Amino acid sequence: MLPGSRKGFVLDPRLEGESLPVVWLGLCELRIRDERRWPWLLLIPQRPGVEEVHDLTPLDQAMLSFETNLVSKTLKELTGCTKINCAALGNIVRQLHVHVVARNENDPGWPGPVWGHGVREPYRREDLHQFAEKIRARL
Amino acid sequence: MLPGSRKGFVLDPRLEGESLPVVWLGLCELRIRDERRWPWLLLIPQRPGVEEVHDLTPLDQAMLSFETNLVSKTLKELTGCTKINCAALGNIVRQLHVHVVARNENDPGWPGPVWGHGVREPYRREDLHQFAEKIRARL
Repeated sequence: MLPGSRKGFVLDPRLEGESLPVVWLGLCELRIRDERRWPWLLLIPQRPGVEEVHDLTPLDQAMLSFETNLVSKTLKELTGCTKINCAALGNIVRQLHVHVVARNENDPGWPGPVWGHGVREPYRREDLHQFAEKIRARL
Repeated sequence: MLPGSRKGFVLDPRLEGESLPVVWLGLCELRIRDERRWPWLLLIPQRPGVEEVHDLTPLDQAMLSFETNLVSKTLKELTGCTKINCAALGNIVRQLHVHVVARNENDPGWPGPVWGHGVREPYRREDLHQFAEKIRARL
């Protein structure tokens, strides 16, 4: 199988269970994390078996950078947040995924990181869908 | 001033005070964070006034992606770590900087994030310089 192919890609069930699909980009599926404490998006490159950004093909690395920065700019404009936090960690879920989170002074855990901070608080279902719609409209 | 110029760039004193320069890349200065609990590198694009990756020019965004992934691959090969953690946060120091950290199961805070975890533990000076030399030799 070519390393730049999505054949055989299956979304990790932990990512799937705690997020909602928003839109397909060129390389990634964009999802919202169902966590109302912070506006939080996830980009998941549709490539099976990849854990590190540097293990993507050079073209895919460029695509991921482009798509991440597009999503980052969109989320900052939509929310008017103080700072975007962007990260590829993967200590728990190894399937490659990039977090793009809108942070504000006085949000939970500020200025610390969001990962591992307290317990996830899901949206009301209608609010989650409304957020997804707002993102789609701006992309 | 052109947005792609390094004219007027001054390294944030908090970044400078807690890290050692390793090498100049095309866009970024690569530095080691003086924190021996985790192998921790910083890339700092030499562009004044930029806080978000998406505010770099398109060329600089591509360069940052290339340099970050090169450093990530190098650090993983050098350390044989379990996972690279890569992030642009900037909640405290706003000057754009990208963290590339080597993580291992059972390291301090695993699998949580490194930011805000306990108190920084500086290297012995000779160990810090030795680490810098190892990185330079592989880049």
